[in-house]
Amino acid sequence: MSLPRSENLMRRLGMAAPLLLSPMAGVADAALAIAVARAGGLGAIAAATLSIEQLHEQTRRFRDAVDAPLNLNFFAHTVSPPSPADIERWRAALAPLHEQLGLSLPTQVAAGRQPFDEEALAAVEALRPQVVSFHFGLPDASLLERVKATGAFVLSSGTTVAEASWLQARGADAIIAQGWEAGGHRGMFLDTDVGAQVGTLSLLPQIVDAVEVPVIAAGGIADGRGLAAALMLGASAVQVGTAFLRSPEARTSPAHRAALATSTDDATRVTNVFTGRPARGLLNRLMRELGPMSSEAIAFPYAGSLLAALREHDPGGDFVPLWAGQSAPLAKAMGAEEITRGMIDEALDVLRDTGVSSASWAAKRS
Amino acid sequence: MSLPRSENLMRRLGMAAPLLLSPMAGVADAALAIAVARAGGLGAIAAATLSIEQLHEQTRRFRDAVDAPLNLNFFAHTVSPPSPADIERWRAALAPLHEQLGLSLPTQVAAGRQPFDEEALAAVEALRPQVVSFHFGLPDASLLERVKATGAFVLSSGTTVAEASWLQARGADAIIAQGWEAGGHRGMFLDTDVGAQVGTLSLLPQIVDAVEVPVIAAGGIADGRGLAAALMLGASAVQVGTAFLRSPEARTSPAHRAALATSTDDATRVTNVFTGRPARGLLNRLMRELGPMSSEAIAFPYAGSLLAALREHDPGGDFVPLWAGQSAPLAKAMGAEEITRGMIDEALDVLRDTGVSSASWAAKRS
Repeated sequence: MSLPRSENLMRRLGMAAPLLLSPMAGVADAALAIAVARAGGLGAIAAATLSIEQLHEQTRRFRDAVDAPLNLNFFAHTVSPPSPADIERWRAALAPLHEQLGLSLPTQVAAGRQPFDEEALAAVEALRPQVVSFHFGLPDASLLERVKATGAFVLSSGTTVAEASWLQARGADAIIAQGWEAGGHRGMFLDTDVGAQVGTLSLLPQIVDAVEVPVIAAGGIADGRGLAAALMLGASAVQVGTAFLRSPEARTSPAHRAALATSTDDATRVTNVFTGRPARGLLNRLMRELGPMSSEAIAFPYAGSLLAALREHDPGGDFVPLWAGQSAPLAKAMGAEEITRGMIDEALDVLRDTGVSSASWAAKRS
Repeated sequence: MSLPRSENLMRRLGMAAPLLLSPMAGVADAALAIAVARAGGLGAIAAATLSIEQLHEQTRRFRDAVDAPLNLNFFAHTVSPPSPADIERWRAALAPLHEQLGLSLPTQVAAGRQPFDEEALAAVEALRPQVVSFHFGLPDASLLERVKATGAFVLSSGTTVAEASWLQARGADAIIAQGWEAGGHRGMFLDTDVGAQVGTLSLLPQIVDAVEVPVIAAGGIADGRGLAAALMLGASAVQVGTAFLRSPEARTSPAHRAALATSTDDATRVTNVFTGRPARGLLNRLMRELGPMSSEAIAFPYAGSLLAALREHDPGGDFVPLWAGQSAPLAKAMGAEEITRGMIDEALDVLRDTGVSSASWAAKRS
C-alpha cells in the first residue's frame, strides 16, 4: 500500500528516501540542502528571503556539492498594502513596548518578501530545478504554466481538504498536507481561522482520500516514528524542518538554538505578530505582549517592517521569531546528514518490527 | 517494537484488539460498549451524566450481554462555584440571544456533573470494573488509593507531556495521550492555554518517551490507518470516539447525526461556551455567537446550566453541543461492531503491506 506510493514519488523526484527538507526561509541555505541530499532526501532552497542573485548563488553551491535533485521554494501570497489607518493601529499596538525600551518606533512599512513574479520565473527557467514549491497557494495561472513548461514538478501546501483540492485543480503535482503541529508559516490561503486548523494525523488521510496526486506529510514529523506513521496514513513522503534546526548546517541563531534545546511539547504557539500571517514558533516576549494572535497586525509581510528597531535591539530571542513545530523537543543537535539517515533507519526498524507484530496479532485473532 | 507493547496491554486488560471505546457522556450508553466489546475492544460507560442507579443499571446491561472487561469513566475536576459577579457577566453575554429568541434567561446555576466522590467510589467497589478512567486529572489520593485497592487498572488523559508525567507520578497505570484532534472535552487540567495544545502525531511519541507506563493514543483516530499510525508512534492501543457517533448503537441525536454526515476536516472548533471547559465540536450557532472560546463563560460545569432555555428551544443543533473530533468525516453510518472490526482489519492490512514495502525499500538503499 505505502510501497508503490512512496516509490513512485521517489522515482519521479529522483530521491533515495521519501523525505523532503522543508524550505526554511532565513534559517537555512544550501548547506542544509546539501546534507539532506547526501542522505538521499530532497534538498530545498527557500527563495523568500534571498535576492535573485543569491538564489543563483545558493543553487550553484548546491550543485557544485551534490549531484541530486533540488526544490526551489517561493511564496505565492497576494500583496495588499495596508492602509495608513491600519498602519497607525499597528504602530499604536507596538508603541508601549518601544517606549519601555527607549526605542523609536519605525514609521515606514515595506513589503520585504515578494511573491513569485516574472523575475523569479526567469530564475526558474534558467536554473531548471527538478521541483518548484509554493507556500500560500499558487502563483497566477500564466506564471504557473511557464513553471510547468520547464518540466518542474510543482508542490504546494494545503492545510485543509478544501485547500488541497483547490491546489490539485489548479495544477499542483503533489500536495504537502501541512498539519497543526508544523513550525513556521502556515500555508493557509483559503481558510483564515487558525482555530479550524487540523492536526496532521487527522488531516493527512482526509487529504489522501480527497485528491489523486501524491500527498506529502508535514507537521510534527521529527524522527523515524513520525515518518513510519505518515506512511501508514497514506503519505508518499514527509517534509521535515524543525528536526534540522539544531544541526550545524542550519543557520539557526544561538538564541534560537538555546530555546530549542530546552523546549517542550507545549512551548510553541501560532502567532501573526512577526509577519502578519499565522506561523508557529516558540513562545517569546513579543508573542506574549502582543498576541500570540493580534487583530492589529497589518497584512503579510508588512507587519514585520515595523519591528525593525525591536529586532535590532533584541537581547536574545525576545523580539525575533523562533520558528519551531510542536516536535521541537525531538530535534537533535547533530549533523543533518546523520539526522536524515537516522530518521530513515528508525522508520525502517519500526516498520519491520511492526510487520512481525501484525502477523502474530492477526494469528491471535483468528 | 509495537508488538510487545500492544500485547502486554491487551493481556492486562483482557482485550482481543488494541482499541478502547471513548467514554462519551450523554451520547453513548451500554449499547455502544457492548458492540465494541463484541469486536474485541474495551467497552466504556461514562458516569458523568448518569445517576449512581443508572450507572449500576448500565453496567448490568453490559454484563448481561457480554463476558468482557469494562471501563467505568468519571470526571475528576475541581469544583469551584462561580461568584455572583461571574454569573452576571455570563448572563449578560447570553442575554441578547435570549431576547432575540423571546426566551427568558435562566437565573439559577447548578453543578450538574459531580466529580468522582465517595458515592462513586462505593459504586466502583460494588461493580468492580476492570478499568476505571478519569478525565480532568485524578481524584484525591485517598479516593484513588481505594479505587486501586479494588484491583482496577487506572487511566487518565494527558494533553501535554507535563500532564502525562503528573498522572504517572500519582498512580495512573496507563496514560491516554489526547491530541488536538480529539472530540469532546479536552482532558487538560494543568495547562490552560488551548493554543498550546499539541497534535496527536507530535504529542504521542513525546509522551511515550517521557513515561514508563503504556500510552493510549486519542484524537483523530477513526480508521485503520490511524490505528496503524498510532502503533508506529509508540502507542500500546488507541481510544476511539467520533468514529462511532453515526452507529445505531450511539445515542447521537438526529441533528448531531445530520451535522456529522456533512462535516469536513475543518468543521470543528474547541469551545468553552457549552460547559465552561474547552471541548471540540462541530461549529454551530452558539459557538459562532459567543465564542468559540469566551472569557465570559463561568467555570465548568456551571456554564451549561444557564443554557437550559436555549437547549429546550433548540431548533436542530444550534444551541446544543455537537461534539466531534477533526476526523468526523471518516465516521461511518454502520454498526459499531462492524466499525470496530473494520478498523482492526484495515490496520492489519496497512501494517502487513508496509512490512513488505519496507523490506523492498531497505533493499534499494543498501
